[in-house]
Amino acid sequence: MPTSPFHGALLTDLYELTMAAAYFENKFSAAASFELFVRSLPPERSFLIAAGLEQALEYLETVRFQAEDLEYLRRLPVFENTSAAFFDYLRDFRFTGEVWAIPEGTAVFREEPLLRVTAPIIEAQIVETFLLSTVTFQTMIASKAARVVMAAQGKRVVEFGSRRAHGPEAGVLAARAAYIGGCAGTSNVEAGRRYGVPVFGTLAHSFVMAYQHEEEAFRRFNRLFPQHGVLLVDTYDTLAAIEKIIQNDLHPTAVRLDSGNLLTLSKQVRQRLDDAALGKTQIFVSGDLDEFAIERLVGEGAPIDAFGVGTALATSVDAPALSGVYKLVDLESQAGISYRAKFSDDKITYPGRKQVFRFQNSEGTFREDIIACETENLAGGEPLLHRVMKGGVRNGPGPELQEIRERTSRQLGKLPRDCVRLHRPNHYPVGFSRNLEALLRLVRRQVEHPMRRPMNSVRTPETP
Amino acid sequence: MPTSPFHGALLTDLYELTMAAAYFENKFSAAASFELFVRSLPPERSFLIAAGLEQALEYLETVRFQAEDLEYLRRLPVFENTSAAFFDYLRDFRFTGEVWAIPEGTAVFREEPLLRVTAPIIEAQIVETFLLSTVTFQTMIASKAARVVMAAQGKRVVEFGSRRAHGPEAGVLAARAAYIGGCAGTSNVEAGRRYGVPVFGTLAHSFVMAYQHEEEAFRRFNRLFPQHGVLLVDTYDTLAAIEKIIQNDLHPTAVRLDSGNLLTLSKQVRQRLDDAALGKTQIFVSGDLDEFAIERLVGEGAPIDAFGVGTALATSVDAPALSGVYKLVDLESQAGISYRAKFSDDKITYPGRKQVFRFQNSEGTFREDIIACETENLAGGEPLLHRVMKGGVRNGPGPELQEIRERTSRQLGKLPRDCVRLHRPNHYPVGFSRNLEALLRLVRRQVEHPMRRPMNSVRTPETP
Repeated sequence: MPTSPFHGALLTDLYELTMAAAYFENKFSAAASFELFVRSLPPERSFLIAAGLEQALEYLETVRFQAEDLEYLRRLPVFENTSAAFFDYLRDFRFTGEVWAIPEGTAVFREEPLLRVTAPIIEAQIVETFLLSTVTFQTMIASKAARVVMAAQGKRVVEFGSRRAHGPEAGVLAARAAYIGGCAGTSNVEAGRRYGVPVFGTLAHSFVMAYQHEEEAFRRFNRLFPQHGVLLVDTYDTLAAIEKIIQNDLHPTAVRLDSGNLLTLSKQVRQRLDDAALGKTQIFVSGDLDEFAIERLVGEGAPIDAFGVGTALATSVDAPALSGVYKLVDLESQAGISYRAKFSDDKITYPGRKQVFRFQNSEGTFREDIIACETENLAGGEPLLHRVMKGGVRNGPGPELQEIRERTSRQLGKLPRDCVRLHRPNHYPVGFSRNLEALLRLVRRQVEHPMRRPMNSVRTPETP
Repeated sequence: MPTSPFHGALLTDLYELTMAAAYFENKFSAAASFELFVRSLPPERSFLIAAGLEQALEYLETVRFQAEDLEYLRRLPVFENTSAAFFDYLRDFRFTGEVWAIPEGTAVFREEPLLRVTAPIIEAQIVETFLLSTVTFQTMIASKAARVVMAAQGKRVVEFGSRRAHGPEAGVLAARAAYIGGCAGTSNVEAGRRYGVPVFGTLAHSFVMAYQHEEEAFRRFNRLFPQHGVLLVDTYDTLAAIEKIIQNDLHPTAVRLDSGNLLTLSKQVRQRLDDAALGKTQIFVSGDLDEFAIERLVGEGAPIDAFGVGTALATSVDAPALSGVYKLVDLESQAGISYRAKFSDDKITYPGRKQVFRFQNSEGTFREDIIACETENLAGGEPLLHRVMKGGVRNGPGPELQEIRERTSRQLGKLPRDCVRLHRPNHYPVGFSRNLEALLRLVRRQVEHPMRRPMNSVRTPETP
């Protein structure tokens, strides 16, 4: 088993714990269902690739309050009226609930539940913050990676962004998610060890600069890594560096260009390498690349074999957050199921546990998704949510990372073309079933007091 | 001592390890100096607040390769020609170097070294990735927080963004950095326990929705947290919720508005609370806020006492990456010091170890910074870099977090007004000393081969 990072139960928001205390003191123990979904997609995104479920489930199986956590909480003034019994409860805290989820590597859209938790409400609440940050972050990066990989049109893309990631752990998770999204691998070694992501590395300018002569650096590096040597050629003068490689009869696997006009330079370098019978030496480029820069380079015929993408990928720089939410949809007690929805001005939440059905056309292309009540069965639609955990225990080991990555690739191939294009993609049609719309109306009427605003001012969710 | 997150030595890029292997096999053991700085500031940023040093030093003291790390590395094809002695070296790896740094909470600018590492080159290289991601991420968040806090003009700002942070650990680091930047605290409990950041929490919509009647939820929550109860009032209808609070004779510490027109609603809510003799009940608002939204609300006289800021703060959403780099500046061996610089087309690195001198005018306002050679002593300037680690051991414990936060506040008060404004701030003048410019020219002439492009095509660094 891989060594896991720190999974303390305090990786949560304080209000999860104050609410937990209030539920505990009030003996409120109904089973609650919460659904995790993305409210709306950022500009230039028309689909997401689900990712992060594996770490979410690993957390749910292992989350514990440590003695030092409880000691800290007991000292907080906010808990001055909270009973000792509550802290005893936390000491023995385990997640015992059920989880349904859409598999990692699946294309998903706005308002589709990626994950549903059904558990005693305190448990379901305490895990909210961790689940949101884990699932939405990896989903965001996998989605960005899918765009970058599509732009490269079959050329390899390697994730290089650890140094710009939001802390060292974010770099590891980003590398995993980028691989799911279609990257060939990462520079992040821990992601290699922990998750089996293929790792790639070249050399830095500092190595070239450490030696008095650039060619000495090249020779020494190439000797140790004859099959894996990628030489960085832009430290001083790119074309001069290529001449040194040729003059020294080095046969690097690839050369890396990290600055300058990559279109012009890659053509000049390719020409010189070919002239010198170094046709097998590939050209690897990096340096502030994103899907648009790659699209241009590929479109202009730059003879580039692989792209290293850092900041843009590891931070999803143009859309560095998704509007992920985790919403209460029902409560189940001896009295039966009670549906919950939210109707505040600009944010509506549909009630009840849901299933997402995906419909394909006769060529196998995805046509539309319908979000329905969990109990519905829409003929011809593929249900996307599956039960992955029961009683706090996983059904079994999750799929291999490689398998998830292949699922992404198959899913991308089935999305409508106008939905996957990089610029101003069309939105994919996602609707709500008639039963679900009816349930929403019903719950709305049940809300204790009449609304102060007229019914017709309520935003109607988009339908296909 | 706080429990630390996982600090494995594999939290690095593969090329750090391939370069390490090449240095090791070639018996290259000179002491190298690397400087970590931000190349250029994002739009709408005119200053940064240094942060993350504490975690960087903690890492340098504790970084180790575990047995499972070495096992993983040995199996990588890239290391097939690497000797067993190299892995023995990694097994015993310790960071033994010296570190100079600008204290956390200091205002810093482009090209100013935040951190300088001098160590045997393998050590200095292996720690690069972790140092960059730790220091630049926290610096980015502290800088964003400073902007948000300035916009609030004395009203409290609480960091609420853990759920949108780039994974759970990023949320903890973001909370620490936001506190350094001037936030009153965070919702992140682990940041409270680990770093002593004050924690804040209210309740979520789910708590209100869990009870059949909103007022029941309010009563139950308020009873348990009479001194700390912040009631969320926008689940169904904000003004109706306020009436319930009044009718039930509740006296919450504050009410929280999370949606709708916050200006109009806060005025209406303030009026009703005051009319009902609830003048002490504060108004707390949240919901997709950033420095610009807060500036508008404050400017329009919204009667708001505190702001909860999530996504914008925890991801620095408008500038989610800084161009942090870690560059080799010299090598020291028995033969003496050998300077290093980089001259590729669009990226120049100044050679040699540096010191930053800050000059104030007679009113105590910062006037300009000069980046100089380490050996220079510029009269009247305050040197910003201090030695914080020697022989791999820290000078002593770092400053308290509270002390760092106060430093930020004092620093912001000393920056020129036109530099701290939110919109189109002026750049603060940062120059290079004449000696440093001379050293750059000298190193340039020493570079082994003549440049292919004329000297005058080289970009000249900006001078004040």
